[in-house]
Amino acid sequence: MPQNIYDQDDFFERYITLDRQVKGLIGAREWPQLRALLPDLNGLDILDLGCGFGWFSRFARENSAASVRAIDFSQNMLDRARVMTDDEKVTYERADLDELILPENQYDLVFSSLAFHYLVHLPNLIKEISKSLKPSGRLVFSIEHPIYTAPSNPAFLVDDERKKKIWPLDDYRKEGSRTTKWFVDGVQKQHRTIGSYINIVLSSGLQLTDFIEWLPTEEELKVYPASEDDGIRPKFLLVGAMKC
Amino acid sequence: MPQNIYDQDDFFERYITLDRQVKGLIGAREWPQLRALLPDLNGLDILDLGCGFGWFSRFARENSAASVRAIDFSQNMLDRARVMTDDEKVTYERADLDELILPENQYDLVFSSLAFHYLVHLPNLIKEISKSLKPSGRLVFSIEHPIYTAPSNPAFLVDDERKKKIWPLDDYRKEGSRTTKWFVDGVQKQHRTIGSYINIVLSSGLQLTDFIEWLPTEEELKVYPASEDDGIRPKFLLVGAMKC
Repeated sequence: MPQNIYDQDDFFERYITLDRQVKGLIGAREWPQLRALLPDLNGLDILDLGCGFGWFSRFARENSAASVRAIDFSQNMLDRARVMTDDEKVTYERADLDELILPENQYDLVFSSLAFHYLVHLPNLIKEISKSLKPSGRLVFSIEHPIYTAPSNPAFLVDDERKKKIWPLDDYRKEGSRTTKWFVDGVQKQHRTIGSYINIVLSSGLQLTDFIEWLPTEEELKVYPASEDDGIRPKFLLVGAMKC
Repeated sequence: MPQNIYDQDDFFERYITLDRQVKGLIGAREWPQLRALLPDLNGLDILDLGCGFGWFSRFARENSAASVRAIDFSQNMLDRARVMTDDEKVTYERADLDELILPENQYDLVFSSLAFHYLVHLPNLIKEISKSLKPSGRLVFSIEHPIYTAPSNPAFLVDDERKKKIWPLDDYRKEGSRTTKWFVDGVQKQHRTIGSYINIVLSSGLQLTDFIEWLPTEEELKVYPASEDDGIRPKFLLVGAMKC
């Protein structure tokens, strides 16, 4: 069972002030690129894993999805999601994604935003997802990029000699827990190599269709000078796959 | 046209002392994993890009390949290759991979070991390769890993506070030339992001089948303590793809 940081009040109170919670999908800078990986949602049966406040579930229904089954592990999230989207075609459900069993041949699209890097048993979940997809069904997900999760101390250092900010990779190979500070101390994530993510997908009967390292464009660097950090090392990875 | 460092004598004299040149394929630590990506070579028509001394071409013929067309940009390499393997089914040829035009529907396997990260026009070459493959034909290649090529100063630093060796990523996003010291000063490579490599493959009508970040196993760490460095950051990336 992964850590349920989202039900820890001191974390949650700060988390909900993030643009992506206040403004929804358009508050997430990676959203335009993630959206571009989605098929036309019209008439699709969708599973949303780690749905949070349900911003994506709502977007899916606004884009004529037939149904959305939305799952999260956080009661805080689900309470808010149910208030924000009251739609009989959206069902909210509490479950631990690390233990999830899914029905066969049920969904056209499985979507997950920034949830998989918390999971200990991701290979099992991806197998369940593959099983649950209809033929040619899609999996679209985002995660924290393995380069971002790898360091034991994920904070920029300065190379004194060159006066350059550097991202200190010190143990990329070693998969498993990383404990970081994010609003509060002790937030736990699971680091996996890029190879592991890709091979979990390929070995589950899925074909890789998209692989986007979220990196700022020249335009974005001008508009958001702070995004320079995200060019030093990629923060997010967006992946698309299709059931063979 | 990429730099032709292999025809620079001061470089070449040192390069040929590497285990992988002296002992051939078994002198390359990544070879077992690269070999595992290959199909059965029996009866295959093969193109070997950046063939060096022709160790792979020879291996392919020893494993009953029907023919091998082997290409390199270095005259030094080709002179040695022709002496080492005199086989009428192996043809050695000098060409710039950045400008290569290939015939359609000709090869069962295109192989390349540690050459593509020198190329400026890799997207064009991969399109040519895809065109030249027969249906279900394979592309198997190794490159220096993008995490390895990214830093402007690709040398380990020490995080003084934590007393840990770190690999200093400082501009992963920025693709293009990197000038490094490898035996001699001024060796030029081309850095591309992982996303770029994968998308070059996927957008050329190829399906990704294998993606191996060459990282030492626990066993190897015991046998070669120096391989700890390769766990801090991956040095090589091995990729398999199939013509759709």
